[in-house]
Amino acid sequence: MALLLGLDPGLQHTGWGVVESAGSRLRHVADGVISTTTELSLAERLCQIHRALNALMDIWKPDEAAVEHTYVNKNPGAALKLGQARGVVLLAPAMAGLPVAEYQAMEVKRAVVGTGHADKIQVAEMVRRLLPGATLKRADASDALAVAICHAHHRGTRMMLARAQGLGGQAAR
Amino acid sequence: MALLLGLDPGLQHTGWGVVESAGSRLRHVADGVISTTTELSLAERLCQIHRALNALMDIWKPDEAAVEHTYVNKNPGAALKLGQARGVVLLAPAMAGLPVAEYQAMEVKRAVVGTGHADKIQVAEMVRRLLPGATLKRADASDALAVAICHAHHRGTRMMLARAQGLGGQAAR
Repeated sequence: MALLLGLDPGLQHTGWGVVESAGSRLRHVADGVISTTTELSLAERLCQIHRALNALMDIWKPDEAAVEHTYVNKNPGAALKLGQARGVVLLAPAMAGLPVAEYQAMEVKRAVVGTGHADKIQVAEMVRRLLPGATLKRADASDALAVAICHAHHRGTRMMLARAQGLGGQAAR
Repeated sequence: MALLLGLDPGLQHTGWGVVESAGSRLRHVADGVISTTTELSLAERLCQIHRALNALMDIWKPDEAAVEHTYVNKNPGAALKLGQARGVVLLAPAMAGLPVAEYQAMEVKRAVVGTGHADKIQVAEMVRRLLPGATLKRADASDALAVAICHAHHRGTRMMLARAQGLGGQAAR
């Protein structure tokens, strides 16, 4: 059994979701959104994200974290802005000693919906089915839970492979 | 008298420099570069930057910090990468309770060389003249000291204006 923290970074809204993974079973634990005050300076908004992440790790005590590698659009200014939030979101769990995995948006969609070209509504729909009890008040929380689900799948596969190799089985790659 | 920490963020190399500012006088205190291990994961490299920044703030105890707003080039991928380091570089002094100022590269060049279109060699040359004793082993450290010098100038101007307003003088703006 492991508690997985999924994170979808953003300067304005950072989605987070905690999922319990036991074998192939998944259970919704909690989800939410960290929103920052636009009137504050960039450094102060990054502090808000950092403090909120530390507070929620204190409460839920996740074992591992996974962060979405959000699609970088054509605007370098927007990419820099997103990057600043993403750096802080990657830092907090790593500083807390958690392994931090990263997944491309396409991998997340494939793991949750079955195709890398699913839209946000399809992702939210599948997250609701896979995790009864998730409130998903905001799309950011749904994306964060999707990352946690994706991590649970990859983790499960890695553990299965490790077991097969340990037993001398012919694991692919 | 105030100790100012200048920072030039980068995932590979983050330059830093500490300058003492007293009235219009400037004195070089220390400078260096935080380099990260390319073999480590992104989250671990961000932890290296965070720990190093906390360690140097523990040693030099700066009063204020200033971070260069590095030029965003046309590649959104590079902007995202730089942003991730920049987020962590802004976070550390802010979490330590320091005011964190941001300056555009052009403002820094104007404050140090007198023109916003100076090249890196001209900046390093002027930093050496303004701060005798600076070693400037790497360009990143020179850029960080330049940000600290820029902040000292802006700070001086702000304090002068505040004094003039306090005395009922006719301060511009």
